[in-house]
Amino acid sequence: MKDLYPSRQNNKPEIFERKDPVIHTDRSKDDQAPISTEQLDFYEENGFLQIENFFSDEEVSNMQKGIFELQEDSHGVQSDKVIREPESDEIRSIFHVHEDDDYFKNIANDQRLLDIVNHLLGSDVYVHQSRINYKPGFTGKEFDWHSDFETWHVEDGMPRMRAVSLSIALSDNYTFNGPLMLIPGSQNYYVSCIGETPDDNYKESLQKQKLGVPDHDSLRWLAEKGGGISVPTGKAGSITLFESNTMHGSNGNITPYSRNNLFMVYNSVENQLVKPYSGGKERPEFIAVRDGVRDLSYNK
Amino acid sequence: MKDLYPSRQNNKPEIFERKDPVIHTDRSKDDQAPISTEQLDFYEENGFLQIENFFSDEEVSNMQKGIFELQEDSHGVQSDKVIREPESDEIRSIFHVHEDDDYFKNIANDQRLLDIVNHLLGSDVYVHQSRINYKPGFTGKEFDWHSDFETWHVEDGMPRMRAVSLSIALSDNYTFNGPLMLIPGSQNYYVSCIGETPDDNYKESLQKQKLGVPDHDSLRWLAEKGGGISVPTGKAGSITLFESNTMHGSNGNITPYSRNNLFMVYNSVENQLVKPYSGGKERPEFIAVRDGVRDLSYNK
Repeated sequence: MKDLYPSRQNNKPEIFERKDPVIHTDRSKDDQAPISTEQLDFYEENGFLQIENFFSDEEVSNMQKGIFELQEDSHGVQSDKVIREPESDEIRSIFHVHEDDDYFKNIANDQRLLDIVNHLLGSDVYVHQSRINYKPGFTGKEFDWHSDFETWHVEDGMPRMRAVSLSIALSDNYTFNGPLMLIPGSQNYYVSCIGETPDDNYKESLQKQKLGVPDHDSLRWLAEKGGGISVPTGKAGSITLFESNTMHGSNGNITPYSRNNLFMVYNSVENQLVKPYSGGKERPEFIAVRDGVRDLSYNK
Repeated sequence: MKDLYPSRQNNKPEIFERKDPVIHTDRSKDDQAPISTEQLDFYEENGFLQIENFFSDEEVSNMQKGIFELQEDSHGVQSDKVIREPESDEIRSIFHVHEDDDYFKNIANDQRLLDIVNHLLGSDVYVHQSRINYKPGFTGKEFDWHSDFETWHVEDGMPRMRAVSLSIALSDNYTFNGPLMLIPGSQNYYVSCIGETPDDNYKESLQKQKLGVPDHDSLRWLAEKGGGISVPTGKAGSITLFESNTMHGSNGNITPYSRNNLFMVYNSVENQLVKPYSGGKERPEFIAVRDGVRDLSYNK
């Protein structure tokens, strides 16, 4: 398959224009969407959309209970899916919860979420990756700028930009506790990065990403083009949807306020993974679903 | 002299109540102040005050020119006063500019600033410390929580809480480029920290402070008490005044936006340094003015 979005093949960064729509259902069908035309406009223009109070207080409190129970239960567990802090035994992420845990499987299948995601991707969808992120206060490290799509394309063989990430806030997001930062409009440009991808890069990159981080000039260009940086803040229970190629990152967090979320990536069933474009070996199923694709629209 | 604010003498952190007023001119004389009663109330309650557009666009652009000229001129200079990045030759701070540089000496003597500071401290004042901070984008590191007074007391022998820090923003401060964060109300509590202070601790602490950083429980307690964390943002030319004991810090900065400021600490002439309460040796004059005290009210 021709590589429409080459990256990590050169010593010189380049910026290409996006070759896929941002919203994959024709805009003439806005009236069939579960969100408003204004929300669709915002997503198309900025590459992300926040919806506050998406989940009720009761749902939030159940999800909060759910993530801490799973953290507790995973304490002694040795599994690649459980990512710990480099310098302590503290659990930082748990992957693949949309299949391994009945409670979170249910949330991944939430019809309100699926309706939105189906519309944005213009097809049936499946979960490409899921994880719970635990970010305790005081010690949160920064996460450098990256396009998820760049990694998914190069390391996982995702062919096109037809996936959307969903972050469900399970603690209040302030401007100061290391919230998600996005560069509005960046979904329209693909920054081809430098460097070569070694096998098993994910073991390091889940703790600190080094490859697929754009150069400073490209980031400056994107931020100028997009008019700055957006920081959606909001109460627990709000959701943020962002396009697979939207450039994002987060600063560290020295405040006492933790930041936990449930993160799920929906991909179009028409955009399933092929061989990694790096030419390297495939990453494990828990990071990039390949064999276990389950079309969620069959739930309907 | 009795140590009213002991710290780094114990293995257990403690929190003491403040033993000094926050505003040292009696509040019955508010009408003589160069700022409003609302502004004085805010400062007294929160331990800081931001004033936007304090300096005109022309003044800002001159100061910006001034700091970069001085940076340029200092390139080859080997001096303790010029602090460089640990891993590059980039200049991060230049100290003692209120005496060494005529232009910045003039700014330290700005009558509008002195009128405010005189009122807050209830006496004539002098500059205890001054520096220009250059914080380029992308690479800004976090600065952990601390009370300046704790360090000035322990390492410099500042007897009482009767000093005020002034930060002049020389680039726009956003929520996302590692701005100053303060815990409102924290000026009313003194967190006695653990650890002993080695001689020449400043050589390390100017790059990364380790001693005088409160424990997590105390920080959590302060933030709860103060109702959270405040992040004054604003255009270049705004000023932030904060009380010597107000707990503050800053997150890192992965954004392309730099953050430069001119920082000056005014101390009451009635609160001049004695021997360091650590019992250790005095820090150099460029960090803590001792011999070169110059009462700025003589400018009047």
